[in-house]
Amino acid sequence: MKSGLLLGDELTRELYSYCENLPLIDYHNHLSIPALAENRTEQDPAALWLTCDPYKHRAMRICGVDETYITGEADAFEKFRAWCAVFPRLAGNPLCHWAELEMAEYFDLDLRDFPINGQNAKALWDVMDSRLRGGGMGVADILRRAGGVYTAPCMLPTEDPPEGAMPEGMRVVPSLRADPALKPDQATLRTLAEQSGASVGTVGDYKAALRGRLRVFAAHGCNVMDISLDAGFRYCAEKTADTAKLAECDQDKLASEILRFFGTECRDRGWVLLLHIGALRQTSPYLRRVAGAAGGFAGIGAGTDPDDTVRFLRDIEAEDGTLPRVLLFCLNPADMIPQITLSGSFARGQVGPGAPWWWNDHLRGMTDFMEWMSCYGVLSSFFGMTTDSRSALSMVRHDYFRRTLCRYLAGKVRSGELPADRDVLKDLIERVCYRNAAEKLL
Amino acid sequence: MKSGLLLGDELTRELYSYCENLPLIDYHNHLSIPALAENRTEQDPAALWLTCDPYKHRAMRICGVDETYITGEADAFEKFRAWCAVFPRLAGNPLCHWAELEMAEYFDLDLRDFPINGQNAKALWDVMDSRLRGGGMGVADILRRAGGVYTAPCMLPTEDPPEGAMPEGMRVVPSLRADPALKPDQATLRTLAEQSGASVGTVGDYKAALRGRLRVFAAHGCNVMDISLDAGFRYCAEKTADTAKLAECDQDKLASEILRFFGTECRDRGWVLLLHIGALRQTSPYLRRVAGAAGGFAGIGAGTDPDDTVRFLRDIEAEDGTLPRVLLFCLNPADMIPQITLSGSFARGQVGPGAPWWWNDHLRGMTDFMEWMSCYGVLSSFFGMTTDSRSALSMVRHDYFRRTLCRYLAGKVRSGELPADRDVLKDLIERVCYRNAAEKLL
Amino acid sequence: MKSGLLLGDELTRELYSYCENLPLIDYHNHLSIPALAENRTEQDPAALWLTCDPYKHRAMRICGVDETYITGEADAFEKFRAWCAVFPRLAGNPLCHWAELEMAEYFDLDLRDFPINGQNAKALWDVMDSRLRGGGMGVADILRRAGGVYTAPCMLPTEDPPEGAMPEGMRVVPSLRADPALKPDQATLRTLAEQSGASVGTVGDYKAALRGRLRVFAAHGCNVMDISLDAGFRYCAEKTADTAKLAECDQDKLASEILRFFGTECRDRGWVLLLHIGALRQTSPYLRRVAGAAGGFAGIGAGTDPDDTVRFLRDIEAEDGTLPRVLLFCLNPADMIPQITLSGSFARGQVGPGAPWWWNDHLRGMTDFMEWMSCYGVLSSFFGMTTDSRSALSMVRHDYFRRTLCRYLAGKVRSGELPADRDVLKDLIERVCYRNAAEKLL
Repeated sequence: MKSGLLLGDELTRELYSYCENLPLIDYHNHLSIPALAENRTEQDPAALWLTCDPYKHRAMRICGVDETYITGEADAFEKFRAWCAVFPRLAGNPLCHWAELEMAEYFDLDLRDFPINGQNAKALWDVMDSRLRGGGMGVADILRRAGGVYTAPCMLPTEDPPEGAMPEGMRVVPSLRADPALKPDQATLRTLAEQSGASVGTVGDYKAALRGRLRVFAAHGCNVMDISLDAGFRYCAEKTADTAKLAECDQDKLASEILRFFGTECRDRGWVLLLHIGALRQTSPYLRRVAGAAGGFAGIGAGTDPDDTVRFLRDIEAEDGTLPRVLLFCLNPADMIPQITLSGSFARGQVGPGAPWWWNDHLRGMTDFMEWMSCYGVLSSFFGMTTDSRSALSMVRHDYFRRTLCRYLAGKVRSGELPADRDVLKDLIERVCYRNAAEKLL
Repeated sequence: MKSGLLLGDELTRELYSYCENLPLIDYHNHLSIPALAENRTEQDPAALWLTCDPYKHRAMRICGVDETYITGEADAFEKFRAWCAVFPRLAGNPLCHWAELEMAEYFDLDLRDFPINGQNAKALWDVMDSRLRGGGMGVADILRRAGGVYTAPCMLPTEDPPEGAMPEGMRVVPSLRADPALKPDQATLRTLAEQSGASVGTVGDYKAALRGRLRVFAAHGCNVMDISLDAGFRYCAEKTADTAKLAECDQDKLASEILRFFGTECRDRGWVLLLHIGALRQTSPYLRRVAGAAGGFAGIGAGTDPDDTVRFLRDIEAEDGTLPRVLLFCLNPADMIPQITLSGSFARGQVGPGAPWWWNDHLRGMTDFMEWMSCYGVLSSFFGMTTDSRSALSMVRHDYFRRTLCRYLAGKVRSGELPADRDVLKDLIERVCYRNAAEKLL
Repeated sequence: MKSGLLLGDELTRELYSYCENLPLIDYHNHLSIPALAENRTEQDPAALWLTCDPYKHRAMRICGVDETYITGEADAFEKFRAWCAVFPRLAGNPLCHWAELEMAEYFDLDLRDFPINGQNAKALWDVMDSRLRGGGMGVADILRRAGGVYTAPCMLPTEDPPEGAMPEGMRVVPSLRADPALKPDQATLRTLAEQSGASVGTVGDYKAALRGRLRVFAAHGCNVMDISLDAGFRYCAEKTADTAKLAECDQDKLASEILRFFGTECRDRGWVLLLHIGALRQTSPYLRRVAGAAGGFAGIGAGTDPDDTVRFLRDIEAEDGTLPRVLLFCLNPADMIPQITLSGSFARGQVGPGAPWWWNDHLRGMTDFMEWMSCYGVLSSFFGMTTDSRSALSMVRHDYFRRTLCRYLAGKVRSGELPADRDVLKDLIERVCYRNAAEKLL
């Protein structure tokens, strides 16, 4: 069944018809390429819907649920029931909208008739479990149903992109998660030395070894690199010589040196460079102990100085103004307007914002983003949504984005702010939902 | 009479019926416990409505009124008239809504029929004066009429909570305003030495004396502490030893040491800890001279680094993740989303935002807050409103909050963002308007 | 013809009738006084509409247009066509609204019937060109048609305000762009020495020479000074002695010393002081080379600490609280609420926000500003709009502001937030659109 979520008026529905069936490009996520290649099916509803989704863990925590039932020793169904029990308290949270779309699209359930709560947890489990056992719910099936034509799960530089057949009709390519390489540990250096067959003692050696990895990734179709610059990162313009010994380098200067190296490589290779700016990863020590480092309890750091981003971009700009295509994802919404404004500060539209990211990926965050893109940038130049997700079901968030966009535009037409020019609106919707990313990545 | 303010549509009115008569918990304000105990009545309309309300002083200043008529030598009625004269120029300012509710609730006046302005200042004075003289307008009467069941005026650690009978049917308990103790002056130390009957020379002595005061406050029913961390405060993780001499301590390190001490005490006692973050108190030297330090001319400081709050919380988190219930009040609205996000960054919902505070306590500030709580946290987990006020009439701001909440939710239902599920909405409204605070404080 | 933009409902139109024909005060712009005096007409549509408008350059850049067609060697019509070709992709951007008003007001074209695009670029060029050749399109004509009665193009301290007749019925006075004087270069000092006929070796000499220039500007009717404090500026309270040699001064301390000097002069002369806070001017080196320093590619700097502004104001506040009328323009929208709040932090309404500036000058930026002024300040105290523009056609942005204001207020009345009191609303609209600025400047 098709959910009617956010499609309440006729104009929104008309605009939605322009993008509803467009192919889907997910250029940054945390899916597993082997799982995609093998079209693996998760073993139970908890594994499919809950275990891999830190957004849900977080909401449960806020509602006071003990870690036993989130990331602890409770069994799969107990956790599933605990999640269902808090669901009615989440009214207004994006998880409700996502669940509505996921249940409609993949389980033929209308949550407005079948509310999720503690009482019906078992009934919901049974519906989902039976659907999983019915076949056609492998991770590649889920992506295909969502219209996926390009997906780029991220991998570390030292990881080897899998060889072998990929699901038909879909480009599954690795993207490169490069930030762990900014301050390499000994294990990384040893692995790189083995992979490159050369010693990695100097900054120059290190760059050469990394360049080798970029070639490997490129050979597997990679054309996207992402780098997380967490809260507290400061760009340092001072160069570190290639002859410098890694062991003797100032770590912060080295990080900026390698960042420049990666930026220049992306520029010269025509790759897209995603900068994920401003996460605050060190929060509760207790949660880090019990839930692990990716447990969904990161916070939003202080606002980031746009000048930090700008000084980096200045340093990798070529004489003729060429840069890589840079997408700036910022976690602190107060950073978004300055970052969007930078799209007009470099030549030929090469710098622009990324999608509303992580804690901003919801109706309000996306709508604010669309409005700010319109006012401080150019909305039709937006590169497009990506999930950044660990869960295949999250592909419905592209649909959520498309509904939000059409609703936003329909509201503007109704209020007289936008002309009701179908050609203009269709072109904008197609660019933002598909063509801008397709032109660069496919 | 009952004001119809913000209750324009049927669904809002229906939702409002769920909270209209809920009891009221005001867990942080600046009322006087003796005045409450004695149910004192103010001597004239200016004393009741104007003298104690720096929000009005501020609005008059912005409109160009001379201090003579605000905090200066003009007599009570001249000031009252000057206030009435600027009132028509305040269209859009929250003071208009507050006045509308205050006049309807306590003076049976509908401001849409009886507009406040310079011409009718005398008529308004007479109505209010006659009401004051008619009885039933003591500060406890005003609270009771608003539904007050718990009120916690703040007091300094060295002040002695009053003994004796309190108004019937109402818990009036002190809350502890602890921030002056972060950097104690000599007078404070002398008083503490007298109160504790021991010398207060070292950090350890100081903590022991403070612990004694916490016991006194606890014996009077105190279960809330508030600490103001003004703009410029930086948390320092470096410990100061208990054996260190107070006179020789670095003041900033001491402040953080005592903050940790208070935080740990709140955790172990099960108290709620309110952090008021980001006021800019040093503004006009002239106004400070003529209007005093609490004259309502504080500004909003620069955005605060959430990492400062986080590092403090990390340091007082127990091995099993236990923290005090911490409510983060921030004055700079740009800080709200990062602070709300922290609710998902610590276990079991122990950390969350406080109410929209001070200059943010208005329709837009509250609505933004509700939206951000929904998107970046969980709205139903909100601990609830408090006035932070010096004026008993301000209790109508709880009513204002409730109207705003119902209007916000009704709008979401109308737009299709929220299901029209009465059970879910009623539960959310009750939690936020009463139950969340009641469960912790009563 | 009259555009119907944003005037969709009756109440908005009624409110608009209160301000539609009010005179217009543009207290800060980059027009040319000689061009105004001579009522010069631009030579072709590109020169009138495109060359002088960096907002358009910026939008073209974001859409990927090469600099050749923006600031480069392409001829006037090629650039005009390139601009028209991107226009359909700008849906949602303020340039569309501005164009709609400009075309209706000055070229009798309704863009909803005559859409701008690459195909009709020649037709549009011809319409505009014929209008330009038809007479009555000089820069003074354009201002007069917009209702201009006061316009204050900015000039440097060393520039000589033109003598001679000005357009009838209009005050054309210089305003003083003082920030280049904060860190004077040698050429400036030499010119000042010539103009003052005295050597300029010490800080005291420098102030005396500047004071001479202020007298010259005052004699030409100047009563507005603007100072740009770009991102990175930090106020330094430490004084520099008048006896200090300029050549030996710390540049940052000197800048703050001269800022205090200017502030005090404005206070004593009764001038209005505009502070433009937070531009990030160093972005793409390539664009700076090819498009020049004012090429419209500035970014928005990091949030500014309000305490920096406050410490400066504290230092120039007189014993009785007197300050110049200070208008704070901030580029980072996250700074607006703290800056607006400062209006209540100094006596007698002397400090307040400037207009929504530069990248914030659009429907959303203005509406947010009105809302924040209402909630954190007093909307009716707003000093009024100014264009800061290099293009005479931009005077329609005053009309745009007025429409936005009326639409904002009408929405508030409809939602029940504002009483439908015509006297109150008319007074507010007149103050904000004209009277507040007129009382101070005319």
